[in-house]
Amino acid sequence: MAEKKMGNQTVKFETCPYVIGSAAVVGQKEGEGPLCSWFDVILDDDMFGEKTWEKAESKMLKEAMLTALRKSGKEKQDIDLVLSGDLLNQLMSSSFMARDLHLPFLGLYGACSTMTESLLLAAMLTDGGFAHNIIVGASSHYCTAERQFRMPVEHGNQRPPSAQWTATAAGAMVVSEKEPDLSKIGHVDEKQKIFTPCNIRVDCGTIGKVIDAGVKDANQMGSAMAPAAVDTILNHLQDTGRAIDDYDLILTGDLGYIGKDIAADLLVDAGLDKKTVKQKYDDCGTMLYYRKEQDVHGGGSGCGCSASVFSGNIIRRMQRGELHKVLLVSTGAMLSTISPFQGESIPGIAHGVVLETC
Amino acid sequence: MAEKKMGNQTVKFETCPYVIGSAAVVGQKEGEGPLCSWFDVILDDDMFGEKTWEKAESKMLKEAMLTALRKSGKEKQDIDLVLSGDLLNQLMSSSFMARDLHLPFLGLYGACSTMTESLLLAAMLTDGGFAHNIIVGASSHYCTAERQFRMPVEHGNQRPPSAQWTATAAGAMVVSEKEPDLSKIGHVDEKQKIFTPCNIRVDCGTIGKVIDAGVKDANQMGSAMAPAAVDTILNHLQDTGRAIDDYDLILTGDLGYIGKDIAADLLVDAGLDKKTVKQKYDDCGTMLYYRKEQDVHGGGSGCGCSASVFSGNIIRRMQRGELHKVLLVSTGAMLSTISPFQGESIPGIAHGVVLETC
Repeated sequence: MAEKKMGNQTVKFETCPYVIGSAAVVGQKEGEGPLCSWFDVILDDDMFGEKTWEKAESKMLKEAMLTALRKSGKEKQDIDLVLSGDLLNQLMSSSFMARDLHLPFLGLYGACSTMTESLLLAAMLTDGGFAHNIIVGASSHYCTAERQFRMPVEHGNQRPPSAQWTATAAGAMVVSEKEPDLSKIGHVDEKQKIFTPCNIRVDCGTIGKVIDAGVKDANQMGSAMAPAAVDTILNHLQDTGRAIDDYDLILTGDLGYIGKDIAADLLVDAGLDKKTVKQKYDDCGTMLYYRKEQDVHGGGSGCGCSASVFSGNIIRRMQRGELHKVLLVSTGAMLSTISPFQGESIPGIAHGVVLETC
Repeated sequence: MAEKKMGNQTVKFETCPYVIGSAAVVGQKEGEGPLCSWFDVILDDDMFGEKTWEKAESKMLKEAMLTALRKSGKEKQDIDLVLSGDLLNQLMSSSFMARDLHLPFLGLYGACSTMTESLLLAAMLTDGGFAHNIIVGASSHYCTAERQFRMPVEHGNQRPPSAQWTATAAGAMVVSEKEPDLSKIGHVDEKQKIFTPCNIRVDCGTIGKVIDAGVKDANQMGSAMAPAAVDTILNHLQDTGRAIDDYDLILTGDLGYIGKDIAADLLVDAGLDKKTVKQKYDDCGTMLYYRKEQDVHGGGSGCGCSASVFSGNIIRRMQRGELHKVLLVSTGAMLSTISPFQGESIPGIAHGVVLETC
C-alpha cells in the first residue's frame, strides 16, 4: 500500500474520492444574503413546518442530505454510511435525522469544524475501501444555538459587536469512490439549470490539533478559533510542501470579520506573502451575510455556515470551472456551556480538506 | 484492493490492526465492584484532585489514554490521531483532554456507544493506511451526568428502580498497524504483574443504524437501547455468515439488567438458540457493580461503563488467553436533554467490533 501520511497531520488519498453531489438548505435571513442564488432550498419560515426549532434544524439537515443524494444520481440503498454532526447537545439534529434516514450512522462533534471533519473522514473511509458512497453533513440554527449557548431568543438581549450570528443552514455532500454520471448531475441541478463540466475530487486533508490561545470571552469566537485555523493551514502547507499560491482559494469556516483579520495577520507573521494572503484567503463567516444591511455583528458562525457555503457556493463554482483547487478549513470553538464558568479558556480546532477539479 | 465490505453494515480489515495497549481508570464505587482487580487506576476521590467534576472526568480520560500509551510501549510522537467522545455537552471531557495531549483529534458523539465507535473508526483509519497508531477512548462521570441529564446531585432525588447508574470511568486503547513488543507489554503491566502471551487484533466491525423502538421514558434506557443492540448483532451475524457460537463472548455496552433481559429475549425471538444466548451473551452494565450491595438500580451505564470493562477486563482476559474471539457492542441512547420535552421517543444506536487473539 502506498504511504498515505504526509508529515505529521496530513493524509493523502490514493483513489481521490469524488464529491458527486452537494446541497445547501438555508433560512430566510441567509436566503437574503449575497450567496442566495447558490442555495438549493431557502426557507420561507425558519420553523420549516415543525413545532420546535430543534425539529426544524433536524429537518433542514435531512433535506440537505436527501437533496445532495438526489443530485448525486444515487439511491438511498447505494449509501453505506452517514457521517454528521451539529451544535445541539447530544447531536439532536443529527440523531433524529439519522433515525429517519435509517442508514448506518456515526455521529461527530467538532463544533463548527464538523463539515470538514465529516468530509475528511468520508474521504478516508472511501479511499480505505470501507464504503462505496457516504453522505456527510452538518447543520446549525440561529434559534436553537441562541437558546442553548446564550439567552432565550425572546429575551432580546443586546449582543456585543464581536458576537457572531449563528447561521440557520445545513449543508451536505455525497462522497463516492466512483465518478458521477455528469449528464445526470447536469440534469438534476434544477435551480441553476446549468451543465456542470467538472468533477470534484478530494486530494488530501489535514487533521487539526486542539489549540488554545487563552481567549476567555465567549463573544470572541473568531479570535479564539483563528490560531487553530492558522495552525492547521501552516501544518498543511508544511506537510504537503505546497504554497498558498498553489490554491485558488483558502477558505476558513466561520472566523467572521475579526477572526479573519487575525488569521490573515498570523499567516503574514508566519512568513507568507501579505498580498497573496489577501488575494487567496477568505472566510465563510464574512461571505454569508451583507455585513451592514443584515446586522450580523461579527459575521456568520455555526456548523451550517461553512457547511452551506462549501456545499452551495464552493462546490458549484468548482463544478462550473471557476475554481480548481481549494483548501477548505472549517473551524470549531470547543468550549462547553459550562467551561467558561469553571475559569476555562476556549480551545479551538480546525480541519482542512483539499478539493480539486478534474 | 480487496473488498472490505461484508453485507450492508459490516467492514472487514485487510491488515487486522492490533490493540497494543489499553487502560481503565475508574471511580471509588467502580473500584469496589466485582471487576476491581482489572482496573489500572482506582480513584480515592472522584474529584481526582480537581475543582469540578467535569475537570475530574477530563483528567480521568487523559490518565486512561496516557496509561494505555505507556503500556503500549509507544511514545506520544508515535501517535497520529486521538479519537474520543463523552456524554458532556460539547464533549467537554474530550476537548480539554485533547488540548492537553496536543495531538491531531477528531471528536465523536455516539452517547454510550462511543467506545466502539472510536475503536471501529481507528481500525478503519489504520487499516486504510491513514495512521500508524491511534489512541481511542471514552469517559463518563456519575456527577457530571446526573447534573446534566437529571437533577443536581445535591438534590438527592429518588430514582426509579429502572434508572441506571452512570459509571465514573474512562477507558482507552492504542490501535496500531504493527504488533506490539510483547516483552514490553508484559513488563509495563505493573498492576497485574503477569506476562501477556496473546496479541489482540481487530477482525471486523459493524456500523449501527439508529433504531427507535418508541420508548419515551428516560429512566428506561436499557429498554430503549436493546432493540438497537439486537439489530446490530443480527446484522453482524448475517453480514459475516457467523453464528454466536463462533464467539467466546458477545458483550453489549450498558443495557443493564432490564435491557439485557430484553436483548436476550429478542435474540431468541429472532431464532437464536436460547441456551447459547444465555451462555455467550453478557452486558457490561450488569458486570461493573454488585447488584444488590451497591444499590445501582438498573445497572451501570455511561460511555465509561463499556469503555472501562472492555479496556480493563476484556482486553486483559484476551491477553491472558482466557477469551479468544469477542464481539463488543457498545450501545447508545441518542436522546437529548430536551427531546423528551418535545414529545420525542428515544433513538438507540449500537456499533460492534470483533477482537481476536493471535
